Amino acid sequence: MSKIDRVLIVGGTHGNELTGAYFIKKLERAASQIPQGSPDLLANRSFQIQTLLGNPKAFTKGVRYIDQDLNRSFDRQSLQNSTQCNYEIERAREIAQSFEQSSDAAATFIIDLHSTTANMGLTLILDTDAPFTLQLAAHLSAMIPAFKVYSSVNSGRSNDALRSLSFLSLCIEVGPLAQGTLDADLFQKTEEVVGEILNYLEQSNRGELQPYQGELDLYQYLESVDYPKDSQGNLRAMIHPQLQSRDYEMLNPGDPMFLTFDYEPIAYNGDSVVYPVFINEAAYYEKGVAMTLTNKQRLRLETV
Amino acid sequence: MSKIDRVLIVGGTHGNELTGAYFIKKLERAASQIPQGSPDLLANRSFQIQTLLGNPKAFTKGVRYIDQDLNRSFDRQSLQNSTQCNYEIERAREIAQSFEQSSDAAATFIIDLHSTTANMGLTLILDTDAPFTLQLAAHLSAMIPAFKVYSSVNSGRSNDALRSLSFLSLCIEVGPLAQGTLDADLFQKTEEVVGEILNYLEQSNRGELQPYQGELDLYQYLESVDYPKDSQGNLRAMIHPQLQSRDYEMLNPGDPMFLTFDYEPIAYNGDSVVYPVFINEAAYYEKGVAMTLTNKQRLRLETV
Repeated sequence: MSKIDRVLIVGGTHGNELTGAYFIKKLERAASQIPQGSPDLLANRSFQIQTLLGNPKAFTKGVRYIDQDLNRSFDRQSLQNSTQCNYEIERAREIAQSFEQSSDAAATFIIDLHSTTANMGLTLILDTDAPFTLQLAAHLSAMIPAFKVYSSVNSGRSNDALRSLSFLSLCIEVGPLAQGTLDADLFQKTEEVVGEILNYLEQSNRGELQPYQGELDLYQYLESVDYPKDSQGNLRAMIHPQLQSRDYEMLNPGDPMFLTFDYEPIAYNGDSVVYPVFINEAAYYEKGVAMTLTNKQRLRLETV
Repeated sequence: MSKIDRVLIVGGTHGNELTGAYFIKKLERAASQIPQGSPDLLANRSFQIQTLLGNPKAFTKGVRYIDQDLNRSFDRQSLQNSTQCNYEIERAREIAQSFEQSSDAAATFIIDLHSTTANMGLTLILDTDAPFTLQLAAHLSAMIPAFKVYSSVNSGRSNDALRSLSFLSLCIEVGPLAQGTLDADLFQKTEEVVGEILNYLEQSNRGELQPYQGELDLYQYLESVDYPKDSQGNLRAMIHPQLQSRDYEMLNPGDPMFLTFDYEPIAYNGDSVVYPVFINEAAYYEKGVAMTLTNKQRLRLETV
C-alpha cells in the first residue's frame, strides 16, 4: 500500500444532513487550535487532513440541494459537458478541480459523511472491492459492535458520487435521523468512526498494519424497489409497519412489504431472502426508491 | 352547544408533513365512493365534511413552504395588508375567503393534521380554553392511552394559524416522523383520532353528549428555548442525549439540556420543574426554537 498523503473529510454534501456539516465545522475549529485544542483526531498525523463543506448553499438554506443532487453530479462526462449549468454542476466542477487525481491537492482517501432517515445505525458504504477498504471495513466491524457494511459496487452509480474523485473512499451513513436535525449520540458515533479510520490510515502509513484475519458480513446491492403507485404516479401505499425500521433484517418471500392507505398489505414477491436497507429514506421518495434490497455475503479474509 | 354544520379537515398545511396530506387524499377518494366505499368515517354525518390540502405547491415540491410558513400566515392584519404578497399570503387569503366565519361555507370546526420530528406521540393542540374543546380533549384522553394534550393558549400565536379561522378548532401532531416520510402506524393513529373526533361532534349534534367527569392533564406553553449559539448565530450545541426524545417528561433545574460539539453538557438553569415538548423539531431550527417548555396542569372537569 502506497503512502496516504491527503485525507479529505466531507460533510454537508447534502445540505440538510447536519451531522457531517457540523462535524466539518468542528474539525475546522479544532484545526485552528492545534496544537492547543482537541488534538486527538487531527494532530500528529503523517498525512494532511483536508475538510470540505460539500454544499454550502444548500446547507445555509436547510435543503438537500439547490438544483440537483450534488452526490449524483460527479459523472466525468457531465462535468466536461459545458452546455449543462446549475449550482451543483458548478460546485461539482469546483470540487473536482481541487481534489481529483490530477490536481496538486489530490485526495488520496475520501471520507464522506451522511445521515439517513432509515434505521441503518452506523453504516459504512463501499463503492469498490479495493482490498484496502475491505480490510478497513473488516477492522471497523471488529472494533465497533453493530457496525454494518453495505457495498454499492453493483449499483452502477459509483462514478457520480463526490467520493468517486478518489480511488480510495468510503461513505459513513448514520440513522435514523430526520433531515435538518442533529442527534448528539449519532454525532459522537460519527466522530468515533472517523477517528478509527484516521488511526487505521496512520498505521498503514507507518507500515504497522496487521492484515485482518476473520469474517466480514457484506450487504451487497441487488436492486431498488419503488413504492406501489397509481397510473398518475401517486403513492398507493406506505412501508408496512412490520418492515419499518427493520433495515438489515431478513425479508422472506411473502413477508409484508407495503401497506396501502386502506390498510391492505402488499407482500414481497421476490424469489429469495433479501436484506432491505434505506427503508423509508425521505430523500428517495422523489427518486422512486422505497428501499434497497441487498444480499448478505460472509467474506472470509485471510492472508494467503 | 349550537349545531356543527361544517367540519374542515386540513392536511399538508406544511408541504413536507405527508401524513395529513395523504390522509386528505384518502378522504377525497372515499368521499367520491360514498355510499359504496369505506363509509365509516364520512357517511351518515349530520354535518358536512370539507377537506383541504393546505399547501399544494409546497407538497408537490416536498418542502414545508414556498415563501413563508403558511401556518403563520393567517394574522388578519397581514391578510388585509395588500402591500404584502407571496405564495403563502395569497394561499392564506384564498383559504380565509373560503372558510372564515363570514363566508357561505364557514367551517364550524377545523381539524388541522400535522407531524413533528419530536417524539410527541399522539398530541392534541388546543389554542383556546373553549369548554367544548376541553371536554373533547378530555374525552379523547380517556379513550386513547398515551394521548397528550398541549395548550398553546399562552403562546401568543393563536391568531396566525390556519385553524384560527374557526373559533372551534384543534391540531393533531404525530411523531416522531422525519419530514418527507410516511409512517403507517402514525397514519393509522391519525385516522383513529379523526374518527373519534367526528363521532364526538356527531354525538354533540344529536344532543347525546354526556359531560366528561374526571381529570385532564394539560401541558401549557411557558416559553421557547433556543439552541446555544455563538456571536455569529451558529449553533454551539445539540440536544443532550439524556433529553432527546423525552418530550412530556419532567425536566428539573440542573438537568442536562444541551451538549456542545466538544461534548460539554449545558444544564437547564430554570427555577422550576418543566415538561419540554417539540424537542429537536426540524422546522424550528430556523425559528430559534430547540424546544418548548410547558408546565403540567391537572384539570378537574365536573358538572356544577
